Amino acid sequence: MTTYKLTYFDISGGRGEPIRIAFHAGGIPFEDNRLSGAEFATMRDGTRFKYLPVLEIDGAEITQSNAMCRYVGRLAGLYPEDDLQALYCDEVLEVVEDDSHRIGQTFGLEGDAMKQARDKLVNGWTATFLRGLSQLLARGGGKYFADNRLTVADLKLLMEVRWISSGMLDYVPKDIVRNIAPDIADHAARIAEEPIVKAWYASRK
Amino acid sequence: MTTYKLTYFDISGGRGEPIRIAFHAGGIPFEDNRLSGAEFATMRDGTRFKYLPVLEIDGAEITQSNAMCRYVGRLAGLYPEDDLQALYCDEVLEVVEDDSHRIGQTFGLEGDAMKQARDKLVNGWTATFLRGLSQLLARGGGKYFADNRLTVADLKLLMEVRWISSGMLDYVPKDIVRNIAPDIADHAARIAEEPIVKAWYASRK
Repeated sequence: MTTYKLTYFDISGGRGEPIRIAFHAGGIPFEDNRLSGAEFATMRDGTRFKYLPVLEIDGAEITQSNAMCRYVGRLAGLYPEDDLQALYCDEVLEVVEDDSHRIGQTFGLEGDAMKQARDKLVNGWTATFLRGLSQLLARGGGKYFADNRLTVADLKLLMEVRWISSGMLDYVPKDIVRNIAPDIADHAARIAEEPIVKAWYASRK
Repeated sequence: MTTYKLTYFDISGGRGEPIRIAFHAGGIPFEDNRLSGAEFATMRDGTRFKYLPVLEIDGAEITQSNAMCRYVGRLAGLYPEDDLQALYCDEVLEVVEDDSHRIGQTFGLEGDAMKQARDKLVNGWTATFLRGLSQLLARGGGKYFADNRLTVADLKLLMEVRWISSGMLDYVPKDIVRNIAPDIADHAARIAEEPIVKAWYASRK
């Protein structure tokens, strides 16, 4: 039997969480290896690209969270079979990565430089990102982004919306998603209540 | 018949070029809409996420170059059918995007700030990126990254290698790929000689 080991930070979000949920939803046993930042620091140089998540399939290292979302999503039935619906799903996966990169660029700044960078982000890219997502959700029918059902696109975006609405990012207002794209805020609230999402968190208690 | 219109900058590289090559390789007619930077500036706000490429399928806008690579790659027979080989292909597509984002972060800097950022990039991320790619190429068998044949992963990386080896990026030495990962430099040279790549450029003359 194939063994899967997913190594990621010990948080209920980010790039690793949609993959964990997909494994669980598909009934696929996996080792949920969770690291603190300090633990990652000690093994970082041993990873291929020096970041997480890392997925080991029978011990062989795989990187790139969106690649994992698609692969595990397919195994778990959370990725469209139809090519056009897969394209719609992929468009969301990829633009969420763009958003994470743009937020990541502001990390490490301090004081006024941080405030300026975050204000520029919020009023520029983040607004574009959220309005574009509204278009993509409407294209998908208003409830899901692709295939008229839950896919890894919905899970990936849920984690991003939680992050940018968390108040953990200085100068990013907690109500930004609700204010700019209420449909996207509603989507996140609905996805959080999906049975497979609730089942994952119930299994963690 | 489905119509395809790909809008991208008028360059033989970047995020749009692998998609053009895939269309051509698959014998799929598409409108190759090429814009200057000034032309893009006038239509930028009308695009979903304010960047290129944009693919219109029967007039409906699609964004995200990796999503297009997979979709058009499938149409053209340049994307693996096997799930694990697709994962290998995706890992390359995604890490090349990471590289583009990291280079993009240094744009707009000037003088010493530019030099410092590029030196840090070259000695840090770029070296990690190229060494990681060497691992991925070895995994694929040494010639291609996935499926023992040409896929969009090879085309995507070819454009990236050309870019970082072009001398167009200040403080990024032209021989960086050759010095750090000669196998990746050799791969790019081989992919440039693939019949479908040569046929595309021959068709443009």
